Amino acid sequence: MKVWLNGVPAEQISVRDRGLQFGDGVFRTMRCSGAEIILFDAQYERLRHDADKLGIVAPTKAMLERWLEPVVGSHGSGPSVIKVILTRGESERGYAVPEGIQPNCVVYAQPVPASGRQWRNEGISARICATRLAVQPALAGIKHLNRLENILARREWDGGEIAEGLMLDTDGFVVEGVMSNLFFVWQGRLLTPDLSRCGVAGVMRDAIMRQQATEIGRFEMETLLQADEAFVCNSVMGIVPLRRIGDKTFPIGSVTRSLQEQWVDTFVE
Amino acid sequence: MKVWLNGVPAEQISVRDRGLQFGDGVFRTMRCSGAEIILFDAQYERLRHDADKLGIVAPTKAMLERWLEPVVGSHGSGPSVIKVILTRGESERGYAVPEGIQPNCVVYAQPVPASGRQWRNEGISARICATRLAVQPALAGIKHLNRLENILARREWDGGEIAEGLMLDTDGFVVEGVMSNLFFVWQGRLLTPDLSRCGVAGVMRDAIMRQQATEIGRFEMETLLQADEAFVCNSVMGIVPLRRIGDKTFPIGSVTRSLQEQWVDTFVE
Repeated sequence: MKVWLNGVPAEQISVRDRGLQFGDGVFRTMRCSGAEIILFDAQYERLRHDADKLGIVAPTKAMLERWLEPVVGSHGSGPSVIKVILTRGESERGYAVPEGIQPNCVVYAQPVPASGRQWRNEGISARICATRLAVQPALAGIKHLNRLENILARREWDGGEIAEGLMLDTDGFVVEGVMSNLFFVWQGRLLTPDLSRCGVAGVMRDAIMRQQATEIGRFEMETLLQADEAFVCNSVMGIVPLRRIGDKTFPIGSVTRSLQEQWVDTFVE
Repeated sequence: MKVWLNGVPAEQISVRDRGLQFGDGVFRTMRCSGAEIILFDAQYERLRHDADKLGIVAPTKAMLERWLEPVVGSHGSGPSVIKVILTRGESERGYAVPEGIQPNCVVYAQPVPASGRQWRNEGISARICATRLAVQPALAGIKHLNRLENILARREWDGGEIAEGLMLDTDGFVVEGVMSNLFFVWQGRLLTPDLSRCGVAGVMRDAIMRQQATEIGRFEMETLLQADEAFVCNSVMGIVPLRRIGDKTFPIGSVTRSLQEQWVDTFVE
């Protein structure tokens, strides 16, 4: 795995970096077809939007594209996962941000997980996590580097039988998967949880909402468990049917299959 | 500033470190007299306690002491601030923690802030921050590396007139300062906010509660503003009187001065 820091090859970063010190930054996880990054325009807009929310200056799109050049295609013509980490930069001590701080931008590529095709074809089982997401409107939606809630949730299970965990907020509403966004069909309507109080607003979620009219709302687990079909999504694995949530099983429904159909050339291993 | 990583001199850390990737770790900020670290036993116990809560294996006390040897006294016989960052270690991708992961422990010393003596003698002004702390019992009290709330709060002001910001939780209860814990005297009782829902339980707070009987509770800003005296504390600056919160002024009271008296030989510049 080769890593670039602000366009320069580097495997390491200063311990003064505020990403390490405080989780003071944002990131993107993007799929690369070999030739290009899927949904790159949307990914860049989200990166800039999230950085803006924290008062971090994102690189221009042209600058980021330049930094990504050696990474795109570094896995040959096959697909890869590209990660971009943007931190506020380095400072000496304390939460205060010194004037003139320069952001740090880390980019690298990795192989796509081997499980993708099977997950999209056959679906996955999910557990309902005990770890809840705190309600924090100031950080909601942002893909920031403060991810301890996701890590605690992911530590609730191991082994391959369970592929994803569903997370509720501390008020009991369903929000998302540990590593994905959630959609479900209920009484003929396509629904996805509101992310204005917590959760990460993924680029794939946005793309699906543009594909098909979706109602955003606050839903209880009871509603989700009455769904006719359900799926999770992210930019790396695409659209993955939920076949089981806890003890409840679901069929792979026609809405899920229809949405997948439009991405069949994008998610290829 | 010299830095040690697991006992070896190193200014940098792998970009794979989960501290950078996710804020997956804990830290301590400790005062060193030159010869020894103030309240080291309590600091170590907190580090281990916090790491345990996240499922991170802390180094033994003997190991950490060995790693701290070159740092203690690196500023001569004068005082310094020693920071310890303990992360879960390095992993390739995703929230899941690989088996056999080895924690990373970064230690370094820095000068004590020049403002300490004046703050302890004359007190400081604090603002009431608009940024609220989310209620998350699973992470409450832990000095972890997910500190974006503190950073957003600290970005609400600049300049030297305001030295600290007071933070409320999303339910409206007073919790702490951006970089300190809070105490106040109200109707003759010494009070400090409950930290079981959010906030960082500092070692200096514990020490003060051992010094003098303190009532822990959930208090509204209205109660704090009716206080007879108030102070903030942490392990670096000690006990610092609050002379002003927003528009409200406070005297430096006898309880604050009496508590300070017992630390007069500890906090010396």
